[in-house]
Amino acid sequence: VTTFGDRLSERVLALGNPACVGIDPALDRIPGVRPEMSVEERAEGVAAFCRAVIEVVAPLVPVVKLQAAFFEQLGAPGYAALVSSVRFAREAGLLVLVDAKRGDIGSTAEAYARAILDDDGPMGADAATVSPYPGPESLEPWDKRTRVGKGYFVLVRTSNPGAGAWQRGTGVAARIAEAVSARCPGPGLGPVGAVVGATLPPGEVALWRTRMPRTWFLVPGFGAQGAGPDDVRPHFARGRLGALVSSSREVLYPPSGTDPDDCRPALRARAESFVDRVRSLEVG
Amino acid sequence: VTTFGDRLSERVLALGNPACVGIDPALDRIPGVRPEMSVEERAEGVAAFCRAVIEVVAPLVPVVKLQAAFFEQLGAPGYAALVSSVRFAREAGLLVLVDAKRGDIGSTAEAYARAILDDDGPMGADAATVSPYPGPESLEPWDKRTRVGKGYFVLVRTSNPGAGAWQRGTGVAARIAEAVSARCPGPGLGPVGAVVGATLPPGEVALWRTRMPRTWFLVPGFGAQGAGPDDVRPHFARGRLGALVSSSREVLYPPSGTDPDDCRPALRARAESFVDRVRSLEVG
Repeated sequence: VTTFGDRLSERVLALGNPACVGIDPALDRIPGVRPEMSVEERAEGVAAFCRAVIEVVAPLVPVVKLQAAFFEQLGAPGYAALVSSVRFAREAGLLVLVDAKRGDIGSTAEAYARAILDDDGPMGADAATVSPYPGPESLEPWDKRTRVGKGYFVLVRTSNPGAGAWQRGTGVAARIAEAVSARCPGPGLGPVGAVVGATLPPGEVALWRTRMPRTWFLVPGFGAQGAGPDDVRPHFARGRLGALVSSSREVLYPPSGTDPDDCRPALRARAESFVDRVRSLEVG
Repeated sequence: VTTFGDRLSERVLALGNPACVGIDPALDRIPGVRPEMSVEERAEGVAAFCRAVIEVVAPLVPVVKLQAAFFEQLGAPGYAALVSSVRFAREAGLLVLVDAKRGDIGSTAEAYARAILDDDGPMGADAATVSPYPGPESLEPWDKRTRVGKGYFVLVRTSNPGAGAWQRGTGVAARIAEAVSARCPGPGLGPVGAVVGATLPPGEVALWRTRMPRTWFLVPGFGAQGAGPDDVRPHFARGRLGALVSSSREVLYPPSGTDPDDCRPALRARAESFVDRVRSLEVG
């Protein structure tokens, strides 16, 4: 079985970039979705928008990341749109990451892993994001699935303004990083990744890279969310590998005033621009 | 607006016990649900079992807690069963806690809060569990909803065997506890609760109680999951208030051999036994 880390490396090298398009369908910004519609109509509008995004970006980037919350706010029809979008993206040849930040233990964690990763479950995604606070046991059901080529990204160090309050200077993020790195013994980049924020001080990013040398970093927030090239370069391990650079809003959403009725050309232009900027990050 | 902490206190006093029945529908233990069924049939079996549990326990306990993962593993039909079970439990007069351990920031966290708590959203539950690792911002959208009587329980200190690896001795749990306690200024017990494991050393529980004197503790794992009365008594704040004592497996599941076709009498007997044991915890 090819590990998730190697699958991701192969896809990045095949596409020539480590860009990840984040699909965060904010209801007030989706062409054709209006507040007066029924929940079912809005969920169908979300699913249609996701299909358009996936068709446009599938030839351009190796990975899409779907943000579960934005679907769940529409209840069961929204969850159905999440499931169908994951399946549609897999069929389009993309690696699919479900950004759900699930974090639990025992049979509950097992059920979350089954819900997101298992090929005989509803989604069969390639990877998920996992919140580790309950302890090392919260990683176990996800580890089990790395044996069949699945992966997961552990929240290690985020870069929202308040992240330091509970993650920095307490040792907890360092301990979690150690657990992640132990799961990536090499050769190659391992199946367990780490979420490492885009707007941390570069010196701190270098420290996390030293602590997790063979780990894929998922780096949210490039571009519209505030991080520039110099923020993101230290996340890479070598060449264009090791950092999966994600952007959502700047690819998905047009500036206000743009005609929402034919969104594909505009989506393509924005995705190509995003990919160009990620390519320019290539290091060493 | 009556705050969630006061609503919970009122319900506990009205029912005469602080017991919470956890609804964790493990697919292999639900009467009438078989692996060869379609996903839709299994989800309908889960929903029917949840309705039976809710009807049986509604006159006995103040709160039910639904574990999202067990529904999500059935995909969209399972999510629909979660939504309908939450609504059914609310209509039965129960306070409803969705144990989803969501943890994110910004618009994503807002979408999760909307998905679970908002009365004009899909579920309209009374409270949720929240995983705080991303930082204080992860609490903001949930805080906003405390103004309309909703609540949430923050993962502070769990008691799974590995919990200490990242929570203990690092200061992080103490800092999170401080943030929780600041949201419960009194008088009365506040709208923001804390998950504090049942099988911690009693001295440590007393410490958490001192750090969060006006906070409801959600205490999972009483009974079948290993905690006894002496483990759980220190979680209370006063009388039968302050600790919401939860049990799932020992109420939900019959010993093997029980006739699955009429599970209600057995459910009632087990729920009554659970409530009796929780009542016997009353302190001071």
